[in-house]
Parts: sequence; structure tokens; C-alpha cells
Amino acid sequence: MAGRRPGQTQTREHILSAARTQFGALGYGGATIRGIAAEAEVNPALIHHFFGTKEQVFVEALSLPVNPTVMAEVVLNGPRDHAGERLVRLMLGLWSAPEPGKSFLALLRSVSTNEQAAKMLREFLERAVLTKVATALGVPRLRMTAMAAQLVGLAMVRYVVRVEPMASATDDEVVAVVAPVIQHYLDG
Amino acid sequence: MAGRRPGQTQTREHILSAARTQFGALGYGGATIRGIAAEAEVNPALIHHFFGTKEQVFVEALSLPVNPTVMAEVVLNGPRDHAGERLVRLMLGLWSAPEPGKSFLALLRSVSTNEQAAKMLREFLERAVLTKVATALGVPRLRMTAMAAQLVGLAMVRYVVRVEPMASATDDEVVAVVAPVIQHYLDG
Repeated sequence: MAGRRPGQTQTREHILSAARTQFGALGYGGATIRGIAAEAEVNPALIHHFFGTKEQVFVEALSLPVNPTVMAEVVLNGPRDHAGERLVRLMLGLWSAPEPGKSFLALLRSVSTNEQAAKMLREFLERAVLTKVATALGVPRLRMTAMAAQLVGLAMVRYVVRVEPMASATDDEVVAVVAPVIQHYLDG
Repeated sequence: MAGRRPGQTQTREHILSAARTQFGALGYGGATIRGIAAEAEVNPALIHHFFGTKEQVFVEALSLPVNPTVMAEVVLNGPRDHAGERLVRLMLGLWSAPEPGKSFLALLRSVSTNEQAAKMLREFLERAVLTKVATALGVPRLRMTAMAAQLVGLAMVRYVVRVEPMASATDDEVVAVVAPVIQHYLDG
């Protein structure tokens, strides 16, 4: 938040709150930047200025522990045969800082207790993550969801249920075990 | 429940309720058959008669969607190079009947909202599943937890968040994608 004026922070929060209302009412697919702007009583251009796309508004509004745009960049940037390792290291970095698994736990909580949250996340994953990332990588969608399952399960076992020895393993140890599987899903 | 007398069903439920109290208060490691019997005011032999081991009492008391004893048997019974497929088929069978993912969702809900439930499950997985299954299979524990992560994540993506195309894929399609990974974890 460095360098942001207090008024900007307030406006951002105000937009994110309006976004949560709109996503909750209309789902990921139904909500629009225009609708969120109307709800927040701001100019749509301001939302584009602060967040860029609807996808980014969604990521921030729900404090998602995973940003599909960053994910795709990390996988595409660098040698393809080490993409699995880069992706696992990205996830471990995101999940372990600043508070281990806190946002993931919050997400898990809403998804498991609230069908509306599950529906929003489902739609978002199908439209934003699968359509974009799977296409960019040339990975079939079913295999992509199996890969996502491995990463989601890793977060659960390591940060939520905290099963040993996975909970205390170093990042390098986790990468050694899990990255080959992620690479397998990417390569087919 | 076929063939069980009403009194038996009541006694079982009474024991399971006492078990939940004891596991909740003392954790998986601290609770004993003797303690559960005292709580339920029944003879410990009756608990052994109904459930066998403490592990089985735990599985039934928490309505766990996965029974580690059955899991180990399924993996060990039959050719080792198809163990991954047998395990995935077992899981899909357990999770999809009678109500898809219902008990898994209940488990997820308590684990994500209740640190005591997370602790119980963690202890149970470490002691009952990992120590026994990993040893029987000769699979290192860290790899075993990564395998568990793949299966847990599969249940989340397919039954809880229900992301397509994983949610509507046939069992055979899921097996084709995920079983090689489970086999990889078993083989190392």
C-alpha cells in the first residue's frame, strides 16, 4: 500500500465491497465492471485504473490466494521443462507469506459452508483459469483440473490440516516430491 | 443396518457420541477404548465387539469418507502396478455414493472452521494412516502425504467446488488422468 493516499485506499475498499455484492448476486459470469461501478457509484474507468480486468477485481475482492494471470506468466516464463517446479515454488511462496494459509483457509471456509461462494469460485476457475491458462499452455482441461486438485490438496494437507511430515517439510523437499507430478500434468 | 436390533443401533449411536466427546477432549492419541467405554457407561468389550479397534471407532464417529484399513487392503490386494488405479476407483466409489461428497463436505467444513477437528484429523492421519499404510506399502511418509493431497484435492475439485470438466467426467476418465500420478507416488 506504500505511496497510496488514504483516499485511494478507501475508494479501493469501497469498490471491492461493491464487487463482492455484485459477484454474490450475479455470479462471476454475470457481474460486470460497469455493474460494479454503478453499485460503487464510481466511474468504470476508475475500476480499470485500479484493478485492470474483472478477473483482477474478483481475485482481490475474494482475497484469492492464487492469481491465475500470475500463474500463467510464471509457467510460460522460462524453460517449459521446469514449469512444474516454478509453479510449485510460486504456490508455496504465496501460501506461506505473510500468514501461512490464512487466506486459503478463509476461502476453504466459505466454499465448504456456502454454496454461493462455491458457485462463484467454480465459475471463475472454469472461465478465467481453465479457459485462459489451459489454452495458453496447450494442456487439456481435464488434466488441468487434476493438476489444480494436486495444488489445492497440497495447500490443505500442508497449511490447513497440517499433516506431518508435509507441514514441516522445507520448500525444496516439497518441490522435489510434487513438482514432477505438476510437470507430468503440464507435459501429458 | 439390516438385521440389527433397534437396541443395538441405539447402543452404537450412544458409543459413537461418547467417542466424539472423548476424541474432542483428548485428541485421537489421548482417547482410549477404555475411556470411551467409561464415558458411554458400557463394557469396553462391547466397543471391541461393535467396532474392532479405536481407529474404526474414530472412522465411524467422524463419518470419515476414507477408511485407512480398507485403503491399505485395496492397495495391497492385487498387482502392485495397478494399485494406483484401484485406489482411485475406491475413492471415487466412496465419494460418489450415496450422496456425492456429502460426508467429505461435512468433514471439510469442520476442519476449516474448527481447529480442534483439524487437530484430531491431523493426529489420526499421522498415526493411523501414515504410520500403518506408508509402512505396509514401503512408501516414504512425505510422498504418502503428497499422494493424500492429490486425492483430497480431487474430492474438492470434483465434489465440493465441482469444477468442470472434472465434475462431470466419468470414473474411467478420472482414473485415466489421476491413477498414473497415484501409481507414481506409490512407486517413487
